[in-house]
Amino acid sequence: MRVMGVDPGLTRCGVGVVDGAPGTPLRLVHVTVVRTGADEPIATRLLGIETGIEALMDELRPDAVAVERVFSQQNVRTVMGTAQAAGVAMLAAARRGLPVAMHTPSEAKAAVTGNGRADKAQVTAMVTRLLRLDGAPKPADAADALALAICHVWRGGAQARLEAARLGTRTRTRGGAGQ
Amino acid sequence: MRVMGVDPGLTRCGVGVVDGAPGTPLRLVHVTVVRTGADEPIATRLLGIETGIEALMDELRPDAVAVERVFSQQNVRTVMGTAQAAGVAMLAAARRGLPVAMHTPSEAKAAVTGNGRADKAQVTAMVTRLLRLDGAPKPADAADALALAICHVWRGGAQARLEAARLGTRTRTRGGAGQ
Repeated sequence: MRVMGVDPGLTRCGVGVVDGAPGTPLRLVHVTVVRTGADEPIATRLLGIETGIEALMDELRPDAVAVERVFSQQNVRTVMGTAQAAGVAMLAAARRGLPVAMHTPSEAKAAVTGNGRADKAQVTAMVTRLLRLDGAPKPADAADALALAICHVWRGGAQARLEAARLGTRTRTRGGAGQ
Repeated sequence: MRVMGVDPGLTRCGVGVVDGAPGTPLRLVHVTVVRTGADEPIATRLLGIETGIEALMDELRPDAVAVERVFSQQNVRTVMGTAQAAGVAMLAAARRGLPVAMHTPSEAKAAVTGNGRADKAQVTAMVTRLLRLDGAPKPADAADALALAICHVWRGGAQARLEAARLGTRTRTRGGAGQ
């Protein structure tokens, strides 16, 4: 299973792609940051992020996309830009028929370090170890995107089974109601 | 000048298209609401909004797109969905090379009624009058998208001149600095 993790942002949008499956070693496929200029109009910036992410999707062909769930931890203006960058990533995935999952920052941190409040150094160290890299991934701020992708590889199987169960239940419920 | 106004939302995204120029009568071209289901995944909803808006852009060929500027007037979850729907509209415009402007709800209300805190009935009444319609535009909640488009027709000229002046100044400043 190949997962693209996206750590959304207008100025820097981290993208990390990982191959793996629960119980098997992970492999780094690609890691990068898509950048747009803070002095450009927002529409142009969203287009720049779309172009960057779509090129990576078309080249690397992930099976699933995991996007960091955005919270209002910062000021409203920043959150809205981050939400819009996340929206662009989700839209690009949906256009390709790729499943999209969202994980919170603490879910990603907990997945790779065991601690949902781990600091950046700890997340980077574990991402480096789990992907068996010789050094920390570069650019440094793309480590979060890799943690997100790893989180999804490990949670993906369980989530898919839960979703299948949910849909199965819903189908039965509808059937029972005579629809 | 043909302007598409977009009142963004995930559940209901209002789209109103108006022909006009400062000092000349306005004409209604089209008004509708793009809807997506609240039970669909967000990625699917963003794709639904994109598909709807792009079809309208390709059919009606606006010269400019005016999107309502989103504020955190509601809960964070709603604001983020609204911001993402706005992002989809801006992205679709940017992909077509269309200029994108953002106006606040009070700018749109003030443009059509003279009062930035006018209520919905007043906005609808003035939109109906300014577009010389026989009755209120339907769907009713698309009146805001039309007010936004009208606001842009009237402000557009002034904004374009200011932007030209700003770019001119910047060019001169840079020239003066020997760059």
